[in-house]
Amino acid sequence: ASHQGSVAAAQKAPTTIDTSKFMAPPITELSVLEGKPNDMRTKMELMIMRIQSEFCRALEGEEGAGCKFTVDRWRRHNPSEGGGVTCVLQDGKTFEKAGVNITVMTAPLSKELQASMRARGKKLPEDKKFSFFAAGISSVIHPRNPHVPTIHFNYRYFEMQDEDGNNKHWWFGGGTDLTPYYLDEGDVKLFHGVLKSACDRHQPDYYSRFKKWCDDYFFVKFRGERRGVGGIFFDDLEDTDPEKMFGFVTDCADAVIPSYLPLVKKHKNDAVSEEERRWQLLRRGRYVEFNLVYDRGTKFGFATPNARIESILMSLPLHARWEYMHQPAPGTPEYKITEVLKNPKDWV
Amino acid sequence: ASHQGSVAAAQKAPTTIDTSKFMAPPITELSVLEGKPNDMRTKMELMIMRIQSEFCRALEGEEGAGCKFTVDRWRRHNPSEGGGVTCVLQDGKTFEKAGVNITVMTAPLSKELQASMRARGKKLPEDKKFSFFAAGISSVIHPRNPHVPTIHFNYRYFEMQDEDGNNKHWWFGGGTDLTPYYLDEGDVKLFHGVLKSACDRHQPDYYSRFKKWCDDYFFVKFRGERRGVGGIFFDDLEDTDPEKMFGFVTDCADAVIPSYLPLVKKHKNDAVSEEERRWQLLRRGRYVEFNLVYDRGTKFGFATPNARIESILMSLPLHARWEYMHQPAPGTPEYKITEVLKNPKDWV
Repeated sequence: ASHQGSVAAAQKAPTTIDTSKFMAPPITELSVLEGKPNDMRTKMELMIMRIQSEFCRALEGEEGAGCKFTVDRWRRHNPSEGGGVTCVLQDGKTFEKAGVNITVMTAPLSKELQASMRARGKKLPEDKKFSFFAAGISSVIHPRNPHVPTIHFNYRYFEMQDEDGNNKHWWFGGGTDLTPYYLDEGDVKLFHGVLKSACDRHQPDYYSRFKKWCDDYFFVKFRGERRGVGGIFFDDLEDTDPEKMFGFVTDCADAVIPSYLPLVKKHKNDAVSEEERRWQLLRRGRYVEFNLVYDRGTKFGFATPNARIESILMSLPLHARWEYMHQPAPGTPEYKITEVLKNPKDWV
Repeated sequence: ASHQGSVAAAQKAPTTIDTSKFMAPPITELSVLEGKPNDMRTKMELMIMRIQSEFCRALEGEEGAGCKFTVDRWRRHNPSEGGGVTCVLQDGKTFEKAGVNITVMTAPLSKELQASMRARGKKLPEDKKFSFFAAGISSVIHPRNPHVPTIHFNYRYFEMQDEDGNNKHWWFGGGTDLTPYYLDEGDVKLFHGVLKSACDRHQPDYYSRFKKWCDDYFFVKFRGERRGVGGIFFDDLEDTDPEKMFGFVTDCADAVIPSYLPLVKKHKNDAVSEEERRWQLLRRGRYVEFNLVYDRGTKFGFATPNARIESILMSLPLHARWEYMHQPAPGTPEYKITEVLKNPKDWV
């Protein structure tokens, strides 16, 4: 594997980047990363590899002995376009399905994606061909116990330019959001509080803006409800110094563990009834609906030529259930959470 | 209920339409139907109500005692726009989830749907507002035994006109298709053979055209495979006499029971291993992917204002499963069916 290198190579160019704790070697050649240590592409790739590893190890710490993430390092159909590292833990004691994926890729921007970029306000001349660079981490954790919420986060950096190296664009996007099956207000407050702290260190209005953006984004129109209790969501962040943006995105990614692990520890051994398990599976059906019908990241994946579909759909739960006209009875805990999904609240 | 009527009403206007075997009273007032017995809207509504009832009763015949369809007769948010009858049998001995829905509705055509109609070649002037009438039956049957295939069929009649009653369009669409979990060539041949016979009674090229259309339509691009082993699919049929088209669509709908019931009877008590059940659930995940990402009927439903989402998503299975990178080993029965999904065959 390239992160170990040969003795000869190590003597020629001593490694200054420590990749020993990563789940796998970075996608980009180490020599390239080391040659451009201050390039945002390098910084982003190393950050997401670190976060991936720290999050996977933290989750493994909540699992039974011997239950580890499998690490799948893959390249795109055209290897020069990059690839990713998909880490999955399936059918564990604590986690029914946990996926943590990083992608680092450069590829031509399809016409379909160019049109969708224009619809989002990017100024891309019609007569030019564009390519993009993307480095991002994306994760969805579906725990076994219905009292432990599902978490999703995604942090990404994009660059785009035309075939002549002009019309350059760059931006950051991302977010972290929580999907509980049962409402524990303390959990939701802790989760939002940690995200707010991360935001507040950067700009006073970030949390309120990005909290609202999250509530709006994760809306399933045909159900009239949100996927979960929100968190933060932002996209097209390009209005300030890239270094500052990178610092913000890094802080958000570092906030994932303290926002979520306490909830896992608190509830992973809660007693579970058959009815609670059934409710969890029904809500997982709703999660599938959002991800397949609305999620922009999934749609972007579907529209990317030779997309690695298994890494995109890693977000889907191990099990989901659909019943015709299932409606929780008023006053039940199942009803309580649906009320919050219909009417988002301020938690901090 | 209006189909029983009061004694007084019965004396005033004796009913000539026998609705006693339907799952519920028709959506349109009986007096209206009786006043226009030769109107295509009337004929279509009565045909789909008959088919719904015959199919539901045939399926109940394969169930355990006492396991019956629940009948949900509903109206749209604005009752004057019509409604439907959704029949669902859930968690039965033979059928894990069986849904048979009829809809009869008149509603304004949203801008989104107008655009999609234009993209399909309908000539709709930009400055006019349109409304549509639709009457259709739609059904998806997910059996419990993995050796019994899932079947889907849908037959529908559309009319469209602008606010002044001009720019009229009408057409029929529909199809029946099979999604086996394991390949039994005899089953697939029987199924396709019955459909071909129905087609051959009307036009010599129907079966080959509509078989290919079906293979093309039920293609999951990002998986590179079809949802199942096909059947027939057609849309926008408007090139001949509406009475002839109605006769064809009726014959197709009448072919559902003879194309499918023999397969249910043959396999419903087959022995099932845990591995076979797991494979069935994985394939049901693929079914969900097609229905939520690609299916035109589902998309049409999502785009219809105040769509009755539960009737649209009645097609989703009770259970589905997603595993990361599940690949059946070459030579296994699971592998065999995926080969057919990748390379559609001629069966008759």
